[in-house]
Amino acid sequence: MENGTVKGMLFDVFGTVVDWRRGIARDVAAYFAPRDLAVDADAFADAWRAQYQPSMEKVREGARGYVPLEILHLENLEVTLDAFDLSGKVDEAGRTELNKAWNRLPPWPDSVAGLTSLKARYAIATCSNGSIALMLALARYGGLPWDALLGAEIAQSYKPMPGVYLASAAAMGFAPGEVMMVAAHNDDLDAAQSAGLRTAFVHRPTEHGPEQATDLEPTGAWDFVANDLVDLARQLDA
Amino acid sequence: MENGTVKGMLFDVFGTVVDWRRGIARDVAAYFAPRDLAVDADAFADAWRAQYQPSMEKVREGARGYVPLEILHLENLEVTLDAFDLSGKVDEAGRTELNKAWNRLPPWPDSVAGLTSLKARYAIATCSNGSIALMLALARYGGLPWDALLGAEIAQSYKPMPGVYLASAAAMGFAPGEVMMVAAHNDDLDAAQSAGLRTAFVHRPTEHGPEQATDLEPTGAWDFVANDLVDLARQLDA
Repeated sequence: MENGTVKGMLFDVFGTVVDWRRGIARDVAAYFAPRDLAVDADAFADAWRAQYQPSMEKVREGARGYVPLEILHLENLEVTLDAFDLSGKVDEAGRTELNKAWNRLPPWPDSVAGLTSLKARYAIATCSNGSIALMLALARYGGLPWDALLGAEIAQSYKPMPGVYLASAAAMGFAPGEVMMVAAHNDDLDAAQSAGLRTAFVHRPTEHGPEQATDLEPTGAWDFVANDLVDLARQLDA
Repeated sequence: MENGTVKGMLFDVFGTVVDWRRGIARDVAAYFAPRDLAVDADAFADAWRAQYQPSMEKVREGARGYVPLEILHLENLEVTLDAFDLSGKVDEAGRTELNKAWNRLPPWPDSVAGLTSLKARYAIATCSNGSIALMLALARYGGLPWDALLGAEIAQSYKPMPGVYLASAAAMGFAPGEVMMVAAHNDDLDAAQSAGLRTAFVHRPTEHGPEQATDLEPTGAWDFVANDLVDLARQLDA
């Protein structure tokens, strides 16, 4: 692809830049272990995350106004605790503490180096369903060198609604075609491409653990396909 | 002051972090000189900036919806060109080019070092009347290491309306009292303090040139008073 007109890059964060499953499982285990409660932390993380997409659906449909993702995460935690028969074992302070696990997600090993290289040539920003506060916490936790924190909060909507990509590109001061969306998820790229953005698929074959069955391969005509963010920077001569 | 509860810092940008007068005068001179038009570039910069506050007033009063500052800058440029009898000499492309001068303002000599030190301890973000796109351009031009770009655009309002400070603190995930507003302008700090934020005054005695008559001294009970951003970092043990 000719990429001379690309000025900015937007990144999905959960799964593409940070390893949410490892971070959540780690903090869930750290919370329950000293309380002598046996919990399969990986399964808990998967169950919590499984409600992520459905919980945003009412906002996308307009049946519910925009609420920041932290609120949905907390509501989804309640459901997850119920499913694991742990509702009576975790008080409100504990739920607040557990919910903070989303502020402490480890970057993939290549993320900081790849973003740093890309930043030298392109403006780089988040285009996440997470709030600005959540993105700020993750950036400071993991040393992610964003130029700007964009996405759901500035659009008051959730991906894959087209307005989220368009508002994020506009906030950078660029036309949609001057911006490349980077994600490990084909549906995210599909929506970005439909909105007029360039696209780059990044392989994250263990985002959902060793049994991952989705997004193992690019399924669309994306402009770039990369093994990780360092590889993407190399392909873009950044 | 006890500053143990401060988690985030918000910064005014024009005048506090970047030297808008020098940047605008430089680009105005660079535009007119090769066109053989004699223009006092410092006076032009001062005249352009003099319409800054009045031009935001209609938005603050609600008589006009929020428009990004780039639009106001362009409108104010028309008035300035008129005042300098240059309207007929600058076509639309020229006006667009001149307006881009606001994207290329040099940081004060201490800004990058001071912000870098402060960032090690505190989350740092803009709380400017400039748009996200304008802040992004300035950050990339000057190497300003912001964690987030907040202020007028996320609040859809202009300082000193209290909502701008409150929305910016909230977007960081902090209570107003956990955030310190840093500015070279007493009226900005007055509004931030009224909104519940901590305050730090930074001396910028030549923001308006050698004849500056305003904001030469702190006029309120600010939590900190600093000579520059490196001095502020030192005072905050950052």
